[in-house]
Amino acid sequence: MSLARRAGAECLGTSLLLAAVVGSGIMGERLAGGNVAIALLANSIATGGALAALIIAFGPRSGAHFNPVVTLALALRGEVAKREVAPYVFAQVVGGLLGVFAAHAMFELPVLQVGEKLRSGLAQWWSEIVATFGLVLVVLSCDRARSWAAPIAVGGYITAAYWFTASTSFANPAVTLARGFTTTFAGIRPDDVLPFALAQLLGAGFAVLADRALRPRT
Amino acid sequence: MSLARRAGAECLGTSLLLAAVVGSGIMGERLAGGNVAIALLANSIATGGALAALIIAFGPRSGAHFNPVVTLALALRGEVAKREVAPYVFAQVVGGLLGVFAAHAMFELPVLQVGEKLRSGLAQWWSEIVATFGLVLVVLSCDRARSWAAPIAVGGYITAAYWFTASTSFANPAVTLARGFTTTFAGIRPDDVLPFALAQLLGAGFAVLADRALRPRT
Amino acid sequence: MSLARRAGAECLGTSLLLAAVVGSGIMGERLAGGNVAIALLANSIATGGALAALIIAFGPRSGAHFNPVVTLALALRGEVAKREVAPYVFAQVVGGLLGVFAAHAMFELPVLQVGEKLRSGLAQWWSEIVATFGLVLVVLSCDRARSWAAPIAVGGYITAAYWFTASTSFANPAVTLARGFTTTFAGIRPDDVLPFALAQLLGAGFAVLADRALRPRT
Amino acid sequence: MSLARRAGAECLGTSLLLAAVVGSGIMGERLAGGNVAIALLANSIATGGALAALIIAFGPRSGAHFNPVVTLALALRGEVAKREVAPYVFAQVVGGLLGVFAAHAMFELPVLQVGEKLRSGLAQWWSEIVATFGLVLVVLSCDRARSWAAPIAVGGYITAAYWFTASTSFANPAVTLARGFTTTFAGIRPDDVLPFALAQLLGAGFAVLADRALRPRT
Repeated sequence: MSLARRAGAECLGTSLLLAAVVGSGIMGERLAGGNVAIALLANSIATGGALAALIIAFGPRSGAHFNPVVTLALALRGEVAKREVAPYVFAQVVGGLLGVFAAHAMFELPVLQVGEKLRSGLAQWWSEIVATFGLVLVVLSCDRARSWAAPIAVGGYITAAYWFTASTSFANPAVTLARGFTTTFAGIRPDDVLPFALAQLLGAGFAVLADRALRPRT
Repeated sequence: MSLARRAGAECLGTSLLLAAVVGSGIMGERLAGGNVAIALLANSIATGGALAALIIAFGPRSGAHFNPVVTLALALRGEVAKREVAPYVFAQVVGGLLGVFAAHAMFELPVLQVGEKLRSGLAQWWSEIVATFGLVLVVLSCDRARSWAAPIAVGGYITAAYWFTASTSFANPAVTLARGFTTTFAGIRPDDVLPFALAQLLGAGFAVLADRALRPRT
Repeated sequence: MSLARRAGAECLGTSLLLAAVVGSGIMGERLAGGNVAIALLANSIATGGALAALIIAFGPRSGAHFNPVVTLALALRGEVAKREVAPYVFAQVVGGLLGVFAAHAMFELPVLQVGEKLRSGLAQWWSEIVATFGLVLVVLSCDRARSWAAPIAVGGYITAAYWFTASTSFANPAVTLARGFTTTFAGIRPDDVLPFALAQLLGAGFAVLADRALRPRT
Repeated sequence: MSLARRAGAECLGTSLLLAAVVGSGIMGERLAGGNVAIALLANSIATGGALAALIIAFGPRSGAHFNPVVTLALALRGEVAKREVAPYVFAQVVGGLLGVFAAHAMFELPVLQVGEKLRSGLAQWWSEIVATFGLVLVVLSCDRARSWAAPIAVGGYITAAYWFTASTSFANPAVTLARGFTTTFAGIRPDDVLPFALAQLLGAGFAVLADRALRPRT
């Protein structure tokens, strides 16, 4: 497929992912009535299920990265052409924003919002380093011989990481930026986006190094 | 298999699907005692698990569409003969109704009921457009080379979509009509069925266009 | 493998299944403190996960029926030799009882108990007919070409059926008998076991007929 | 890959596993506010999802044992060289500790803690025997021809075993030791670690015998 089409697929897939992340957060918060554990349970199960479905749907169309640091990591391993990185990242960022707007419209909320939830500090950044390290290492492990692996591994990993990191695991700069535009359950203050993105880059970098050091000869 | 047999399979499969959707809604509502979040968690996990099982069971028998807009989308892509669309849709509608009746009987409720739950307005219709768009795009992505894909993708998608759309994702005109005949958790007012079905047709149409525009050359 | 070994595997597998069903019921009931919806959510997710694992583990050893009506249905389709039915059913019944005893011992309860939970009436029996019909049809659909199908389909189906039937889906005469020996969450009054088993036989019979009528030519 | 690299992979994988186990326990406990059932539901679903992802990621790198008794059982079956057992176990123990420290840092807790939760007595030890017996038998059943089997079987089994055993299923001496260094939800008193490890060894021994007795000829 041409680069334009693949970037279009990447934009659409990231958009559906953000609609799922933000939409299920809103629904969880509304129905759970203050019981944050139930809201996060719904949010994490919904995100994992949506990720598995979207990776199956968009894998053959664009590779289903949905995440700038995944695109970067694959480029460093030579599996994505360098000139394709910028269009992919641009498509992911635009798609993420559109997905947040779509979710707001589904729940009769103002389409354009600015995040208010403070997410900052060393523990949060360390959480994002760990979360992104694990995610990128998992993605780099899903070889083509096991086509069933990526949807199960990434879906299972993210459902888990919502719970095992203090930041609920953003692990994705495009997702983080997009979530800067919602005041709902999944939101983040715009000021906190850049430090999160830097932590995610660091985690992804460590994952590329670990993947290289511990790579099986196949 | 002959068309009559395949339509029979489609009828039976849709019937089991509706028994699962409506039955788990009733059980969730009864046990959760007003905690709607827990009821929807049970309802969404049960529907996803049932869908995975039923797609595995009925895929080889009828294709396991269980959904008029899926049958239509596959017909538009030339994978279902046009003369088979009407019998399939008829079988799905009849099966859906039988499944609702079966669920009512399991829970000692009047078999024949008329839905009362108001589900209307732009946000609900937009939710159905998004939900059906995603579902049909996911289904159109599950190529035969990955036979494991459809049960995981559709099961995961619907579990998620119950949470990320304001309408809890009907995404299926036969299911919507059948749910017009229950006053329980999963019900819908009959007056609201047709607008839902139109929104679903619109979403499915967009999915067919997106699938065409972003189709991988295989 | 010799019949004795396969029956031994069947006994051990059914025993682990019952330990999972009864044990997770006890834990759910204890921790949920009267919130039956949370207890059933834990019980249904645990049973589904255990079933997937046990079918993967015992499939190559004994076929992983764990269920007399599954053995019977496969015998009717000629995939189990008739002289093997009785040893398999005997192994399943013994295994089920051992599993219940093992669960009681894990939770410091009297090993030998007699069930007290009344489960009777037309709605309960109809629930067991539907539950077993669906289960056996799903099992009969899991052809060898899709070795991944049975664990996902049966695990997903049973997690769902705990919720969508009024009886919480026993769907298995050996499991029903074994659960007659516990007063805990998963228990059933001994008097109610035989009618349940008859309903299950009826449901399984319908499934064999439906499988024949709607069988794909492969 | 060289032994050093494989042991490094084993160390990293076990570390991520413990971060997931302990981290999701902390988050569950914090959000659930005393509702232990919800906390364990989150903890068990997160652990199962993480295990599936980590087995997919580390299977090709080190075999993804993450567990001394799994390494031992595979060595007894001749699938791991005897001289590799000690380095693997050492890597698992070190990895487990690092994972617990990483989880504490994510949640702003003192990195070094000593467990306080009493877990002792016959019922607890019997629970660990059953839990480890089942886990090791499941692992020994995941032949290479079914590469999809181990992530689904082990993830599903552990999610279930958190619920169906009175000890919440440690089933792993390296995990048990590491959890001796946290006072949070997943913790255990150091004095109780050795008896747990002995029970686990016993359970694993029974699994090796059962696997031998009931092994299919392939």
